[in-house]
Amino acid sequence: MPKLQHVIEAQQFTLPLLHELFQTADQMEKILERGGTLDYQNKIMASLFYAPSTRTRFSFESAMFRLGGKVISTEQAHLFSSVIGGETLEDTIRVVSNFCDVIVLRHTEVGAAKRASLVASVPVINAGDGKGGQHPTQALLDLYTIYKELGYIDGLKIAFVGDLEQGRTVRSLAYLLGKFERVMIYFIAPDFLQIREDIQDYLTRHNVWFTLESDLNKVVSEVDVIYVTRIEKERFGDKVEIYDETVRNYFIDGKLLSKMKPKSIIMHPLPRLNEISPEVDDDPRAVYFKQTKNGLLIRMALLTMLL
Amino acid sequence: MPKLQHVIEAQQFTLPLLHELFQTADQMEKILERGGTLDYQNKIMASLFYAPSTRTRFSFESAMFRLGGKVISTEQAHLFSSVIGGETLEDTIRVVSNFCDVIVLRHTEVGAAKRASLVASVPVINAGDGKGGQHPTQALLDLYTIYKELGYIDGLKIAFVGDLEQGRTVRSLAYLLGKFERVMIYFIAPDFLQIREDIQDYLTRHNVWFTLESDLNKVVSEVDVIYVTRIEKERFGDKVEIYDETVRNYFIDGKLLSKMKPKSIIMHPLPRLNEISPEVDDDPRAVYFKQTKNGLLIRMALLTMLL
Amino acid sequence: MPKLQHVIEAQQFTLPLLHELFQTADQMEKILERGGTLDYQNKIMASLFYAPSTRTRFSFESAMFRLGGKVISTEQAHLFSSVIGGETLEDTIRVVSNFCDVIVLRHTEVGAAKRASLVASVPVINAGDGKGGQHPTQALLDLYTIYKELGYIDGLKIAFVGDLEQGRTVRSLAYLLGKFERVMIYFIAPDFLQIREDIQDYLTRHNVWFTLESDLNKVVSEVDVIYVTRIEKERFGDKVEIYDETVRNYFIDGKLLSKMKPKSIIMHPLPRLNEISPEVDDDPRAVYFKQTKNGLLIRMALLTMLL
Repeated sequence: MPKLQHVIEAQQFTLPLLHELFQTADQMEKILERGGTLDYQNKIMASLFYAPSTRTRFSFESAMFRLGGKVISTEQAHLFSSVIGGETLEDTIRVVSNFCDVIVLRHTEVGAAKRASLVASVPVINAGDGKGGQHPTQALLDLYTIYKELGYIDGLKIAFVGDLEQGRTVRSLAYLLGKFERVMIYFIAPDFLQIREDIQDYLTRHNVWFTLESDLNKVVSEVDVIYVTRIEKERFGDKVEIYDETVRNYFIDGKLLSKMKPKSIIMHPLPRLNEISPEVDDDPRAVYFKQTKNGLLIRMALLTMLL
Repeated sequence: MPKLQHVIEAQQFTLPLLHELFQTADQMEKILERGGTLDYQNKIMASLFYAPSTRTRFSFESAMFRLGGKVISTEQAHLFSSVIGGETLEDTIRVVSNFCDVIVLRHTEVGAAKRASLVASVPVINAGDGKGGQHPTQALLDLYTIYKELGYIDGLKIAFVGDLEQGRTVRSLAYLLGKFERVMIYFIAPDFLQIREDIQDYLTRHNVWFTLESDLNKVVSEVDVIYVTRIEKERFGDKVEIYDETVRNYFIDGKLLSKMKPKSIIMHPLPRLNEISPEVDDDPRAVYFKQTKNGLLIRMALLTMLL
Repeated sequence: MPKLQHVIEAQQFTLPLLHELFQTADQMEKILERGGTLDYQNKIMASLFYAPSTRTRFSFESAMFRLGGKVISTEQAHLFSSVIGGETLEDTIRVVSNFCDVIVLRHTEVGAAKRASLVASVPVINAGDGKGGQHPTQALLDLYTIYKELGYIDGLKIAFVGDLEQGRTVRSLAYLLGKFERVMIYFIAPDFLQIREDIQDYLTRHNVWFTLESDLNKVVSEVDVIYVTRIEKERFGDKVEIYDETVRNYFIDGKLLSKMKPKSIIMHPLPRLNEISPEVDDDPRAVYFKQTKNGLLIRMALLTMLL
């Protein structure tokens, strides 16, 4: 199998590579239980964030520390070049390559991670590049959570709920699910927040069954996974009533939970706003905080595969 | 003795726990003289600061490093949730719990540390929560400094000087002093900056002798400790003359120093503004920079007791 | 030889000290090839930056990590004192001295590093203090790059090109070159951006040959080093045409490159704006990214000499 060189987009992960990744993540969990390792104590990771995302940064940095490594870090990478006008991303990456063994890049422009990987002399991991871009490690940890909690991905029935139109995590996970067999996807959203056509086309080409639907109640008892996404008020402009109605329609509470299969799970990329009632948190089907833990394992696994 | 689980407020420290803490801090000094330890190199501390306080953060992080540990760190924790509206402190704490072995929390709301400790799966240390809140490790390092420099706390005569009305450190230290015998406290301040009634009530309930006074000269030759606090100009509004007079009245200079007992100390939580003349710095009774060093020892001790 | 105590300005480095530094930097390269060392794992470096300079900070922090050490870090040191009015640099340095084994200071005021060194109980390294101040480690890495790439400094012919009037790196490097024999310096700039008289006086006093010139083409085939500096648009006010002409006149492209000696080098302190064409990057004479790497080695060497 070719060695993993960079982590740029979800699509690059083949089934064998996903298999290797998940096995490595399982090993990382055992290492974590033993208190981590010092194997990588002479390695340096650079967190190069052009916009703050403390949640993602902490996850990567904790992963590196659990492996024994070191971290140089900024959430103001736009200040890397202090002069007005700034330097190109390419120059910055060439410079930072001299200071570390792996670069974790968060950027505001779609395609930035790819551009960085072309000039970097060390591996680059995309930690999110732009609104319409990718956040592949989030999609990988989501997929790993499904695999770990349910034990299968082939044959999965999953409902994506909420604002699917701009949800980067939904888009990336859909790409990955397209690689598996007999997956059935329900996109549950009001019309104007539905999944875009490019994803629909991708799924059609890959023979993945999917349907667009607005009523969560119709499928709640059918699915193995409800993947909830944030519904942000700003997206509704002055249509406050429609916002309120949407939040109400897709609200995950104890009543909805009672209709779900006993062996099913509720996922959320976090942070949540008003999408899930706190009463759901203690139910074993609520796995959104476990996703965070799995993210740590996936990032530890990726770092070991790259270093 | 029950193991220490969280560090939330000064009052939680019983005399036996204070005794254990100070003994551990003494050991930390020996460890520090030997160049620190690597015993905690598989432990991660999260510095979760919702407002910058580099002084406090550096002290905690240096303490963790002297123990061999690792640190994930932010002074912009309000950006933890990058979406508008944000997530609850509880959700953030649940997430961060997955990334570390201990959380050091600085927050702007009174009671935040307590709330965090209720959902955290790792120990929480309060590094200051709100103006009227607590900063227990500051009070502990102050008390440790007195104990170390003078050798006793029972029977102590201490003068608090300056803006006592809002001084968080004075309030927290007063709580701790209430646990000792025969302590005498002089609160030296102009009327409108005097210590609040809640502290007076607390001391009365605990049979601690105290008096309110505005003239520092009356007690300077009596006391074992002069604890100086910042006097901030903004607190005086447009009464610039009263500000100038207050600063002048409570100014610690060589002349005042000459009236103090040979075996007494001058403390200040730092940063100082115009309260203490630089000429005092080299006198052995000036221990405000030693307080900083003792803060490191106390935080090392707390970390070892929690981890 | 007296032990190095602080790194404050380029002039403090004597020839024997430079020799020792470069030898140590050579050793650091071998250590780096073996994956770094853990020799300094009980040492803490404080990055105390009063203004962000992520490039410089990353270089120092990577150097410390390659030596096995730890780092406490802020790019908002002005927040060290959170109260209005702030504390003196001296007090901050006294406090930070308690938390670390070496302080790397970036400040906005000329002379700040010197002031810090007078009160610090640990070594201080100047990482840039003010526009007219010094940035000695940059000058040292520049000199080391020349020594490493060409093999000699005595007898060097070097052209400084661009905005020499305010270029801190040019000024510091000129000071260092004044210590060597038979160096010839060409200052290539339009009149109003020429090197200041204080540097000219210094060179005259040290018997260094130099000339002021505006035409790069006249010397391009003569020199061993072209040292390019940033030309910032703001410096030209509304004289946009003169800016455009200046950039055009001093632009380093393939055509200019073809006139240079085979064994010569092009340097730039980075970040570059429009001074060098990307087509030059792959030429072996383009060493500006190597400078970054050499900066790491020099900083590792300085840290080992100080600690």
